[in-house]
Amino acid sequence: MNFMTTLKDAWRRNDSLLCVGLDPEPGRLPAGLSGEEGIFAFCRDIVDATAGLACAFKPQIAHFAAQRAEGALERLIAHIHAKHPGVPVVLDAKRGDIGSTAKHYAAEAFERYDADAVTLNPYLGRDSIEPFLEHKDKGVILLCRTSNPGGADFQALDCGGQPLYIRVAETIAREWNGNGNCALVTGATWPEELGRVRAVVGDMPLLVPGIGAQGGDVAAVMEHGKTADGTGLMISSSRAIIYASPGPDFADAAHRAADEMRKLVNSFRH
Amino acid sequence: MNFMTTLKDAWRRNDSLLCVGLDPEPGRLPAGLSGEEGIFAFCRDIVDATAGLACAFKPQIAHFAAQRAEGALERLIAHIHAKHPGVPVVLDAKRGDIGSTAKHYAAEAFERYDADAVTLNPYLGRDSIEPFLEHKDKGVILLCRTSNPGGADFQALDCGGQPLYIRVAETIAREWNGNGNCALVTGATWPEELGRVRAVVGDMPLLVPGIGAQGGDVAAVMEHGKTADGTGLMISSSRAIIYASPGPDFADAAHRAADEMRKLVNSFRH
Repeated sequence: MNFMTTLKDAWRRNDSLLCVGLDPEPGRLPAGLSGEEGIFAFCRDIVDATAGLACAFKPQIAHFAAQRAEGALERLIAHIHAKHPGVPVVLDAKRGDIGSTAKHYAAEAFERYDADAVTLNPYLGRDSIEPFLEHKDKGVILLCRTSNPGGADFQALDCGGQPLYIRVAETIAREWNGNGNCALVTGATWPEELGRVRAVVGDMPLLVPGIGAQGGDVAAVMEHGKTADGTGLMISSSRAIIYASPGPDFADAAHRAADEMRKLVNSFRH
Repeated sequence: MNFMTTLKDAWRRNDSLLCVGLDPEPGRLPAGLSGEEGIFAFCRDIVDATAGLACAFKPQIAHFAAQRAEGALERLIAHIHAKHPGVPVVLDAKRGDIGSTAKHYAAEAFERYDADAVTLNPYLGRDSIEPFLEHKDKGVILLCRTSNPGGADFQALDCGGQPLYIRVAETIAREWNGNGNCALVTGATWPEELGRVRAVVGDMPLLVPGIGAQGGDVAAVMEHGKTADGTGLMISSSRAIIYASPGPDFADAAHRAADEMRKLVNSFRH
């Protein structure tokens, strides 16, 4: 599977820019689900209920690692590939280390977990990302302007007339994207800054967290972030979808919440 | 255990600024050792051979995760705490994510693995680090100026007359270190820049990778990095110690290599 091709196909086939985030929390699983098996079953049912409405799934690895549930994450990704091969898997891991160690992180993401793309932190520079970029079929999604309040602490610093996040976007678009497999993380909570990134990176896909629980505005994200053909975005929603109902109807509720979000996004798209 | 207190005690008791990095690679384990059990046995024997010569141990998590060997990492850290309680464990993970996810990464590092300190990436700003800082007894070791060639790509950008890594050091020293549990990663390959960081952060401990395989110069690191009392550094060496011999004498060879490095460092210390 080629990540970029599969993503573009999913945008079109599912008529969706929605990326469903899979952030299982032990205290929020429906009654009867617990432990590694419960985490797997919960995420699997969310996936099966929303696969026709999503352009990507994004499991967040810390939610599994904190519970010793790496096995559930392996099984979940294998399940997505087997049952929903048209929906790519973004492993949200935000790794970053020197080249000799980065090779092991690339093995973790692409071999062990068989993810189609991974989120990474660019602070260590080019050689820390190279072992990922070399996987031409895989997506390399780099933090640029993050959705959280502290995102401005360093990302917004003035670096020679441009904020750091723009320097990051320029460097990635011009120097790191030779294989055409780069994308960026740009938070929904800063839509005008998202628009500045879009102006720098052309049609490069942007992963946009921060809708819903974090307060991002869909209309503003679409205005500033979409490409000319009304795509270019993976708008990520996690908690608003996977915890739409605390009860046994959680999967049906996730389906409805995902469909509402998909339609809301599409209302600003065409 | 309080990380900062234990580190200072280890500097004095073991007369050592050496941090032994534990980066097990499947292709480099001695004959007869393989799989998760082999990774554990290899690291355990290195630990037992060098515990009297080190101020810290630093397992690098990707080397375990790429091999599905989280269980070996858990057992290794438990072994260090049980057998060598005076030597703190730095989990080299370089995590970084928004606050709600950072809580899970903190649980991974401090609860699941019971590490005494963890390395983190500061790019996402204060709230991404807060869940770690709140653990007053734990060490929070933030990337500042890394040892790799690409470290300069962003870290050296001019941010209002100062390079980014100095702005990072200032922010951490002035604003994030209220609990006195912060430290920084500053590579041995840039000793003058290490000295600029030292001038900004006072006696804050610096974790210094890049000696040995990466070519850093011990004399220059000591000249620019040590504090007035001849401490303040965790000088990390991994491959030069753990792979000092490819044969069955690997633990004895690691002991000798660690002792040589300890003495070399000390020759510039007093």
